[in-house]
Amino acid sequence: MPVNLKAPVAQDLAPIAGVRIGVTEAGVRKANRKDLTVFLLDEGSHVAGVFTKNRFCAAPVQICREHLAVRGKAGGAIRAMVINTGNANAGTGADGLARANATCDALATLLKIDAKQVLPFSTGVIMEPLPVDRITAGLPAAIADAQPGNWAKAAEGIMTTDTIAKAFSAKAVVGGKTVHVTGISKGAGMIRPNMATMLSFLATDAAIDAALLPALAKQLADQSFNRITIDGDTSTNDSFVVVATNQAGNAAVTDWNSADGQALMAALRDVAQKLAQAIVRDGEGATKFIQIEVEQGSNEEECRQVAYAIAHSPLVKTAFFASDPNLGRILAAVGYAGIEDLDQTKIELYLDDVHVATRGGRNPSYEEADGQRVMKQQEIVVRVQLGRGTANTTLWTCDLSHDYVSINADYRS
Amino acid sequence: MPVNLKAPVAQDLAPIAGVRIGVTEAGVRKANRKDLTVFLLDEGSHVAGVFTKNRFCAAPVQICREHLAVRGKAGGAIRAMVINTGNANAGTGADGLARANATCDALATLLKIDAKQVLPFSTGVIMEPLPVDRITAGLPAAIADAQPGNWAKAAEGIMTTDTIAKAFSAKAVVGGKTVHVTGISKGAGMIRPNMATMLSFLATDAAIDAALLPALAKQLADQSFNRITIDGDTSTNDSFVVVATNQAGNAAVTDWNSADGQALMAALRDVAQKLAQAIVRDGEGATKFIQIEVEQGSNEEECRQVAYAIAHSPLVKTAFFASDPNLGRILAAVGYAGIEDLDQTKIELYLDDVHVATRGGRNPSYEEADGQRVMKQQEIVVRVQLGRGTANTTLWTCDLSHDYVSINADYRS
Repeated sequence: MPVNLKAPVAQDLAPIAGVRIGVTEAGVRKANRKDLTVFLLDEGSHVAGVFTKNRFCAAPVQICREHLAVRGKAGGAIRAMVINTGNANAGTGADGLARANATCDALATLLKIDAKQVLPFSTGVIMEPLPVDRITAGLPAAIADAQPGNWAKAAEGIMTTDTIAKAFSAKAVVGGKTVHVTGISKGAGMIRPNMATMLSFLATDAAIDAALLPALAKQLADQSFNRITIDGDTSTNDSFVVVATNQAGNAAVTDWNSADGQALMAALRDVAQKLAQAIVRDGEGATKFIQIEVEQGSNEEECRQVAYAIAHSPLVKTAFFASDPNLGRILAAVGYAGIEDLDQTKIELYLDDVHVATRGGRNPSYEEADGQRVMKQQEIVVRVQLGRGTANTTLWTCDLSHDYVSINADYRS
Repeated sequence: MPVNLKAPVAQDLAPIAGVRIGVTEAGVRKANRKDLTVFLLDEGSHVAGVFTKNRFCAAPVQICREHLAVRGKAGGAIRAMVINTGNANAGTGADGLARANATCDALATLLKIDAKQVLPFSTGVIMEPLPVDRITAGLPAAIADAQPGNWAKAAEGIMTTDTIAKAFSAKAVVGGKTVHVTGISKGAGMIRPNMATMLSFLATDAAIDAALLPALAKQLADQSFNRITIDGDTSTNDSFVVVATNQAGNAAVTDWNSADGQALMAALRDVAQKLAQAIVRDGEGATKFIQIEVEQGSNEEECRQVAYAIAHSPLVKTAFFASDPNLGRILAAVGYAGIEDLDQTKIELYLDDVHVATRGGRNPSYEEADGQRVMKQQEIVVRVQLGRGTANTTLWTCDLSHDYVSINADYRS
């Protein structure tokens, strides 16, 4: 059961002018499953993406990077995206690249565009050959299904072992025009890692200076998907794509510090963060949603180090699962996070409003009943103060439960 | 059930001339439990130790470092060690230091030595005040119990949630004299992390140049305890101590490259590695013992990075638990280990004798039945070749099972 997360209602999701989506059952790995999704983008759309840092990145990721680079230089544009579930096309060598290219070729032929105008995405089992024939056979049906109102269907179409579809919308007024933002995501390199991928697609009809788009994608990822972790496993296929169709009629945003820029950025960030948090809320076996705040670091990087050490500690995660205020485990994680000159006598630890540790030791006024009360909640904020400076960071994660082991131990068997 | 590990038999453990050990029940946390152990060392013994790198290191670790540094300069010597279970005296601030010092004072008074000649060790729950009164009350009985033949009893006396005691002996001929090595260990910062400590004590009657001892302790740790990992949690209390009593009558070893030096080193390393591996074999919930070999790195550090990424991946560990040859998970871990310029097309992967992946993709001759056969074994060797150089490393770890979650989620409750 996901933690405080409901399935999207189709009517609540704003269509994005210039984006049509089609979904079909191609039988990639199993029958009777929506497993093939296409995004068709009007001319004039701009696209940017950020991808996994895993050096074992999958074939489609390599091709996405190549096609985005070509388009950026040649001035052409990405006009379509194709996503299959059931197979990650990762760990597949040169043959995997050929198969991903074949998928792009097939879709380009049907749409009468260049293959380099297509971005391919795959998610599923690693190290198995991609069944290109089934995918290309399914493309005509996916294209025939394409319409602007299919965001909820697409959110289902990219699911793998997710228990719930993930989609959100927001809007903003930019230059007197109402602009819309809608996005979908699926878990996750770090959550559904057997399925090997976190994917997210976010689109807006707002006009945005094309030159701003690559940095925008990176900034949004840094404020959302790069702040979640389930088990520390970085997938081979992680991809986050931002599309701006430029059809809302606003004057193009050229400066994020302008009032218009800030309004649009707030809507974009809202959707990106909800999509990212939804992945954690639907994390494998998750029963709790944990926000980790690390404050008073000398720089943001060391705050991230500490936050990740806490978030990845199996001991901390199992304590959350058990609602056990065994909070020394958090202090231990802070200690081994890798800050060489950390002074343990300056550490403060809070669990929501409860002040657990002060100056590196147990807070004299702390009572276990207070820790217990917070640990029983479904949503918990852990706040660590390092006493070294003014930098801070926030991370979202979940607990480690029996179901995590069951899901990962039993999935393929 | 530990993996291929039997309890030590007292008669198989060689006493070390110059070392007497006493164990008693002090009721530190629970009654009727051997929880207090003292080591009494003859004059002329030399002692060195290596300790946790966790910046939240426990009070006793801070005092061990201080006392070893004082002795090293003043030319005096450590004459006693005192170990309690049930309480780690970590995350306890200035009060924790005072309590650890009080323990040293009490033992020093009874033995008529300086408090700085005592090394204190604690293992147990974090962030609780150490019950010094119970410990000092138990010291006379522990001293009265002291005798050379008590190694097996000490191995039990330092156990916390270990399911089995861990002790090994070896011998070597050095300068015509037979010398003995005996050691004990307990899990573990990384295995019994709620109990917050891996402890190991190793002693030899061989004469060794005192100046060599600190580097010896570090080298032995690097070849044994620093090569094991269960869940990546580095404890606040990890300690490994080497004692040389210089009573075997051999001319002191001054050069590890001599024939005598090599013979002694082999015996020391043998015991240290068996003690370290025993901790993994008795890992929380462990059902498999995994040896990870990473070869062809450009340096040892990057080999270690890759080995740890594999060993810490919850996905890899759950696959081992399930005997599921889902080996793409290992490739993914290699990819995110942090080697920026890793070329995935040069990676080779073996599972025991089975060649699973070649040039970064599935080996055409690999059949899942072969992977399945190896995955079902209790002991498995994972071998990764990076194709970058000639460096290599070896690491030992275990799988991640339902019992790991149960033990860590339920322990304190």
